[in-house]
Amino acid sequence: MEIFPLSEIPLVGLGDDVGELLLESCERQRIELEDGDVVVVAQSIVSKAEGNVMDLTSIEPSSRSKRIADEIGEDPRKVEVILNQTEEIVRVKHVLISRTHHGFVCADAGVDSSNVEAGKVTKLPENPDVSAKKIRKRIKEKTGKEVAVIISDSWGRPFRLGAVGFAVGVSGMKPLMDLRGRKDIYGVPLETTIIAPPDSLAAVASLEMGEANERVPAVLIKGATYEPGEGCISELIRSKEKDLFR
Amino acid sequence: MEIFPLSEIPLVGLGDDVGELLLESCERQRIELEDGDVVVVAQSIVSKAEGNVMDLTSIEPSSRSKRIADEIGEDPRKVEVILNQTEEIVRVKHVLISRTHHGFVCADAGVDSSNVEAGKVTKLPENPDVSAKKIRKRIKEKTGKEVAVIISDSWGRPFRLGAVGFAVGVSGMKPLMDLRGRKDIYGVPLETTIIAPPDSLAAVASLEMGEANERVPAVLIKGATYEPGEGCISELIRSKEKDLFR
Repeated sequence: MEIFPLSEIPLVGLGDDVGELLLESCERQRIELEDGDVVVVAQSIVSKAEGNVMDLTSIEPSSRSKRIADEIGEDPRKVEVILNQTEEIVRVKHVLISRTHHGFVCADAGVDSSNVEAGKVTKLPENPDVSAKKIRKRIKEKTGKEVAVIISDSWGRPFRLGAVGFAVGVSGMKPLMDLRGRKDIYGVPLETTIIAPPDSLAAVASLEMGEANERVPAVLIKGATYEPGEGCISELIRSKEKDLFR
Repeated sequence: MEIFPLSEIPLVGLGDDVGELLLESCERQRIELEDGDVVVVAQSIVSKAEGNVMDLTSIEPSSRSKRIADEIGEDPRKVEVILNQTEEIVRVKHVLISRTHHGFVCADAGVDSSNVEAGKVTKLPENPDVSAKKIRKRIKEKTGKEVAVIISDSWGRPFRLGAVGFAVGVSGMKPLMDLRGRKDIYGVPLETTIIAPPDSLAAVASLEMGEANERVPAVLIKGATYEPGEGCISELIRSKEKDLFR
């Protein structure tokens, strides 16, 4: 497997064509796209291109937002944006953990003030699968190549410290790969193994992208193991009722 | 970043020198080790080499093990091994989620009946950091190269479906990389970002290894982002009291 940082992508603004920008980066670096490649794109640039950026000066926080902001030492206007993205508050204690309307459980409902202009925050794309599909379609149109696209974000986790990348949107890749019935090295069929390639690839991609001023908002992965196909990111979400870890 | 599967490693048994076996695989594949490379090794072969393999025929399950086995439809002798590895039972419902004596929260306390001879199970290494250090030291002795070593296992997760790789032991790499204070693309210092490179690398390594009969129990990673140094895997564990996701 090979992982190429897609660097020198200009700062992204509303209406920019992310697929186009990724292809230009590939071209500058003389990376040839092939069928089966995987492109992982940071949530931040997709959100900026789609206008999922909120100017905090335009936000009037509710009294509830003010109360929570007080509790966690956050800007009440940012909390207002977070609550608008929130289906359910999971925990308020130092930080705000919520379940977003997509079904993701993460800090601040994915609302982020890093790598965006001062006084602004990005929200997760409204429908990250659609965002991924749009990029994939553009790449297909321009190159004829069938790639898979993952939209990624970096999150903290239960039980473990340190953020890692997660997939928040996917296109051209089955979110879950069911290995049940495949034989192990002793010929015994696997009984329970189902894996999540989009999360594994988002994890390493986020590490390659960096979180600071690396200016690498996307990576190209060659030789990754995955099942091409359609699917949606909600397939990766454990329903609250069936979450045996909670 | 480049990820090379270390294939054609023979079936590992008690007392085998895992470091040696990895180097032989590199040699056969003409992969040259360099300073800064990362070797990720599956828990299964480390456990086998260290004798962390239990023959179920030798196990006499307690009445508690029998009761739990009944509830989850599992072999009571395997449950007995799991409970011996368990510090605290997190959940018993279809599966057994426990916190191991290392502090990891995972299904079956990491006890695994796949990729081991019929009637046997592997347990996690007693001290996976020591296991990683031993392999790293062997590689240093034989090649003079300073690599980092991660021992990995595949686990399910709260909130998300599908297994991904996690680091269970580490040597030569700081488990957490603190990016607070580094500037983002707009020159604003990051306030909270701490990342977990060992988990990100274990995630992609497990995908490359496969879970079935691929016969790739280790991978070599070139060009990974990490901070060389000493540290222990417990630094990656969120203490129960500070787990804001629970």
